[in-house]
Amino acid sequence: MNKIMKKVIFLQILFLSYLISGAQEKLNLMPMPKQLILNTAKLRLTNKFTVRVPGRPDDTILYKAINRAYQVLNRKTGLVFGQQYITPADTLSKAVLTVSAGAKAEFALGVDESYSLKVDENGIRLSAPNTIGALHGLQTLVQLCSHDDQGYYFPCVAIDDAPRFKWRGLMIDVARHFISFGEMKRNIDAMAAVKMNVLHWHLTDDEGFRVESKIFPLLQQKGSNGDYYTQVQAKELVQYAAERGIMIVPEFDMPGHSQSWLAGYPELASQPGPYRPGPRMQWQNEHPDPNRPKGNGIADIVANMEAPTFDATNEKVYAFLDKFIGEMTQIFPSAYVHIGADENNGMAWKLNPTIMAWMHSHQMQSTDDLQRYFVSRVHDILKKHHRQMIGWEEIYNDKLPKDAIVHKWIPEGMGEVIKSHGTPNDFASHGYRTLISVGFYLDVFMPAYIHYNNAVLDSAKNLNILGGEAAQWTELADNENIDGRIWPRAGAIAERLWSPASVNDVDDMYRRLSALSYQLDQQGLFNVSNYERALRRLTNGEPTTYLKTLTDVLTPVRGYRKLVAGMMKAPSASYQTTPLTSVSDIVSVDSDTKRKFRTLVKAYLQNRDKTAENSIRAYLTAWQQNDAGMQPLFAGNKRLMEVQDHSKNLAAAAAIGLDALDRADKNTPADGTWVQQKANALDAYSRAHYETEIAVIPEIAALVTGHLAPEPASYSAF
Amino acid sequence: MNKIMKKVIFLQILFLSYLISGAQEKLNLMPMPKQLILNTAKLRLTNKFTVRVPGRPDDTILYKAINRAYQVLNRKTGLVFGQQYITPADTLSKAVLTVSAGAKAEFALGVDESYSLKVDENGIRLSAPNTIGALHGLQTLVQLCSHDDQGYYFPCVAIDDAPRFKWRGLMIDVARHFISFGEMKRNIDAMAAVKMNVLHWHLTDDEGFRVESKIFPLLQQKGSNGDYYTQVQAKELVQYAAERGIMIVPEFDMPGHSQSWLAGYPELASQPGPYRPGPRMQWQNEHPDPNRPKGNGIADIVANMEAPTFDATNEKVYAFLDKFIGEMTQIFPSAYVHIGADENNGMAWKLNPTIMAWMHSHQMQSTDDLQRYFVSRVHDILKKHHRQMIGWEEIYNDKLPKDAIVHKWIPEGMGEVIKSHGTPNDFASHGYRTLISVGFYLDVFMPAYIHYNNAVLDSAKNLNILGGEAAQWTELADNENIDGRIWPRAGAIAERLWSPASVNDVDDMYRRLSALSYQLDQQGLFNVSNYERALRRLTNGEPTTYLKTLTDVLTPVRGYRKLVAGMMKAPSASYQTTPLTSVSDIVSVDSDTKRKFRTLVKAYLQNRDKTAENSIRAYLTAWQQNDAGMQPLFAGNKRLMEVQDHSKNLAAAAAIGLDALDRADKNTPADGTWVQQKANALDAYSRAHYETEIAVIPEIAALVTGHLAPEPASYSAF
Repeated sequence: MNKIMKKVIFLQILFLSYLISGAQEKLNLMPMPKQLILNTAKLRLTNKFTVRVPGRPDDTILYKAINRAYQVLNRKTGLVFGQQYITPADTLSKAVLTVSAGAKAEFALGVDESYSLKVDENGIRLSAPNTIGALHGLQTLVQLCSHDDQGYYFPCVAIDDAPRFKWRGLMIDVARHFISFGEMKRNIDAMAAVKMNVLHWHLTDDEGFRVESKIFPLLQQKGSNGDYYTQVQAKELVQYAAERGIMIVPEFDMPGHSQSWLAGYPELASQPGPYRPGPRMQWQNEHPDPNRPKGNGIADIVANMEAPTFDATNEKVYAFLDKFIGEMTQIFPSAYVHIGADENNGMAWKLNPTIMAWMHSHQMQSTDDLQRYFVSRVHDILKKHHRQMIGWEEIYNDKLPKDAIVHKWIPEGMGEVIKSHGTPNDFASHGYRTLISVGFYLDVFMPAYIHYNNAVLDSAKNLNILGGEAAQWTELADNENIDGRIWPRAGAIAERLWSPASVNDVDDMYRRLSALSYQLDQQGLFNVSNYERALRRLTNGEPTTYLKTLTDVLTPVRGYRKLVAGMMKAPSASYQTTPLTSVSDIVSVDSDTKRKFRTLVKAYLQNRDKTAENSIRAYLTAWQQNDAGMQPLFAGNKRLMEVQDHSKNLAAAAAIGLDALDRADKNTPADGTWVQQKANALDAYSRAHYETEIAVIPEIAALVTGHLAPEPASYSAF
Repeated sequence: MNKIMKKVIFLQILFLSYLISGAQEKLNLMPMPKQLILNTAKLRLTNKFTVRVPGRPDDTILYKAINRAYQVLNRKTGLVFGQQYITPADTLSKAVLTVSAGAKAEFALGVDESYSLKVDENGIRLSAPNTIGALHGLQTLVQLCSHDDQGYYFPCVAIDDAPRFKWRGLMIDVARHFISFGEMKRNIDAMAAVKMNVLHWHLTDDEGFRVESKIFPLLQQKGSNGDYYTQVQAKELVQYAAERGIMIVPEFDMPGHSQSWLAGYPELASQPGPYRPGPRMQWQNEHPDPNRPKGNGIADIVANMEAPTFDATNEKVYAFLDKFIGEMTQIFPSAYVHIGADENNGMAWKLNPTIMAWMHSHQMQSTDDLQRYFVSRVHDILKKHHRQMIGWEEIYNDKLPKDAIVHKWIPEGMGEVIKSHGTPNDFASHGYRTLISVGFYLDVFMPAYIHYNNAVLDSAKNLNILGGEAAQWTELADNENIDGRIWPRAGAIAERLWSPASVNDVDDMYRRLSALSYQLDQQGLFNVSNYERALRRLTNGEPTTYLKTLTDVLTPVRGYRKLVAGMMKAPSASYQTTPLTSVSDIVSVDSDTKRKFRTLVKAYLQNRDKTAENSIRAYLTAWQQNDAGMQPLFAGNKRLMEVQDHSKNLAAAAAIGLDALDRADKNTPADGTWVQQKANALDAYSRAHYETEIAVIPEIAALVTGHLAPEPASYSAF
């Protein structure tokens, strides 16, 4: 490439970046494409909308995807397209939308996922080297559909798009609270909307074994409360995902996190049992052992916990797993199987003298050696069944076969509680393909910008790093609230994994995340709908206007504080059936109202913008008056009484905010005592009650101090 | 029985009626039980709630039902019961709730469905002769759970309950807009909540063939747009329903309404075709025939329509149906199969000379004779497969075998358009078991009280009358709005079929229907949630407060006016994929706000009740001011522009109402001219625009005239 060409390309990139950042203010795309040129023209959407798919009559998946896009556009706009759905029999020579997919393809890791999309006033041309790219392009097209005072339109754009990482996953735990088959389908639809391509299905854990085995039926019969997927369902979901460009990777967690396996097959365990699906702490409490070390605090408890664990010295275990994996490969065609292998502290092995003797006779120094041995044996079983092994980072050791994939999840600096096994670059530089979930745990109740700014991912330079996965564990998520727990935040993670690293404007991300939230709920997810349903439950069906004004600015406490508090209070509590209907279970992790309020406060502080001030006053006035409206709802309502203090404090905080605005309007000179006093009061109002916090205190405080503090770069997980 | 005993029983009945009517004011039961004694004591619900099921460790269905009730109570109250779910291993000797089911039973027609439920301060005793009665009792228990200023409780009651009719069905058409598998499950849950026991699954019609055949795969492959239930799914739904005391009766509509069958197997048709799933008018338009009589108006169109129809003279048809029915009996264990047989005017036969010649050679005078012959042949096929035939009333004739069940659907007095074949008493007195759906068509957009006061059912005295079915056709219902179309109105029909005829207070029915609506949405239905989601779509995600104030008082036009208008406008429009997102598609058939407003107006007119007047003023003021709030939403929004007139008219009507209240307050003498003028204005505002009407005009008119007119006893279907 000569110098002039280089310069042209450099200028082009500069130009494109400019256009992208301009476009971000107008378009609701998430993830943002790699390259986008926007012009001001618009292609109007009418009921004359038509589609043609030249040359691919055999591409069933593509036809289905186009018909789904049709439905989305039909429903969004209310237009009834003359061509209501298309089949290979439809061979128009001209159409509004032309979809050209070079090759028929199903998703496999590394498949070319690129596409280009050109909209001009004459029509739309979507081109991709294969089906998968075309599916992504259709999702972009759907998100492009906008409206103005003349109706619905597509802005004229030229998009060239391809992902940054090839593995863009979402892990859903279905072992704790069971997530229903229909709910899984909805989440797959949402994944497809943001171009994620791997569903990591955490099918087994202590609390439940969620997939049917015909060879070992006691797995689901004794290992669940009756809630599990039949093989037919699992196969149907695999197909459903494949039609949306998504691969399902099953996880069967072993050798620890395995109480549900052992409920039906206790002979495979390291201790006699009996076992039943439920948390490890429950089992430990029901099986006291004088030899088990005691401890205080969370660190000791984790270090000394004896958890139900496979006996890695028992040949029957490997024979069992061989048969089981063989059966599962008939259901899950993906080349990958996730074996978990996390959080095995070896205590169940240490407390079994026979296992210790076996280790001794095999020259093993520690239970880490036995874990290594177990992983190696399971690796060989998977290999026999033509599957590549994925495990959480606890599989990582110096003898790990090079075809294994290491899944990073432990943050650095957690001390001895849960110890990191290395950075993604460490794993990758030793030749291991690596996945990143650290920084992407959705169940830690972190705002989206924390995931968006994931430093671990951004430092991941090695080409062995395949990508990452958002992870939703379900101790505190169930069928009803899971949509709002995963979405829209997972959209920010999807963008981080798809879009160029340079797409990193947090404010614009939040603007588009809000649009995504609306989009997903419209397309069948319940992230908005179930929040409103839960509010109606909290008022026993009475109007929810006042309650919503309050809960819209509440967020759950960050980190695992609610989970740990619950475990301490009721160590044996199961997470299979506990209702998640308290305020802390249903309020959004990111308050959309807080984002909007923050934007206003920012504008106001910059230049005393009067429009912004009026909007701020409207919010503050509503919050100030809201507590009075809440009063009739509290009587006898234990769940609402949990936010009684917040309701009062929000009113008081809003009064302070209004006071601050009045003083500024009157140019009352800054009074250090007043500022200090109000800042202290606001600080007190920011405290958590019953695992929720008022989200808008920092912004109200900014009205008092005149300075909006930047948001924390991180929060503690505990 | 001696005279004294008779008198005691008479008094007891009087006493019970009194108690029932007293109880109705407090409890949210639907359907109301046969006998109910309520006392003022309360059994408080705590997390110590426990259940025992003495002597029925084998009754899996009962255990599952109890665990579902647990979940409902857990979620409703936020209490976490110590006993989180029960299995036969739980053998408490004492518990808060004792469930005794005499015999293990699955539903079959005529099974004893009675139960008794006693709640006192020491506990709850649910007893039933078998599983099915116990399931019903659990539903009553769930509905009994109430709340006051101290929290949640069960009122102390003694209930003895049993149904009035043994067949209490809901028909769902899945051939037009396809209703998804998950949606079907939700509707089964809702049916169980109101003690319905038959799901009549209308699986085939011109627009779609919705169940998989392995013997004749072109049925679903060419007969649908890809949306159909697999055999595995159909079997799963049968089992799902059975676990809820519900029998699934499939309908395979023949010889007419069969275009979707003929798409794959045109050789079975009366005309050469080709056929594809779609409405009969579409086929007719695409296959002009100079011999087909023409006509004007709906009556002629119906009388002369040539619809795709099986060739009843073709032996291959019967061989085909024999194999097909044989296959379906492997999926549907119910003793009944519904063959439809409706709306065959014989035109497709008349226009085929070979068929006419065959009829002539077989001494048949008319196509009615051929229809009779067809029904008789299909009856014999069903009999061979051990199934009893059900057909719409068009199967009724003097040679119909006595084991057939006649399904009444045509109202009297429709003239020649669609002609009644007799009253239910006619069919029944000729020895035929009879089902009633006339008066229970949910898709005619009638308010619940019309169904509740169904005169045909109330005149049904013959013991051959098994009961009835609510019917939801889906030209104008789809996955998203169907919950709100069926529910809560089907609850009023369920009550009519279950409760004694004496339970007939419309105002109290509406009070309880409103509670049922909330209950069903909480338990997983989307009758409320999807309405709010649809409102968000109409505003493109903007706040819906003003829109909801308007749409809460709009109702769809009564009857088939919208459907007929749509057919006239676009005769070929398919009802498989058209989006149902206009205001008329989503507003409730019964406006809950109208019911509440009507109650207030009634109270005000009776005695100038000041509290009522204040509430009326609050409603009217909100309506008057609402139009201003709506204005920003209209620009470029075609769907909302459809209610622009209503928005303006509601404001004007509200102003008239406020004026009337002011005049009454000031004792301004009645002014005939003013009254007439305002009444005329209101009359104009009551007119439909774009298939919706303002529901509260009669009540506002009552403020003007001082007289609240009774609601119409009926509405025209056209």
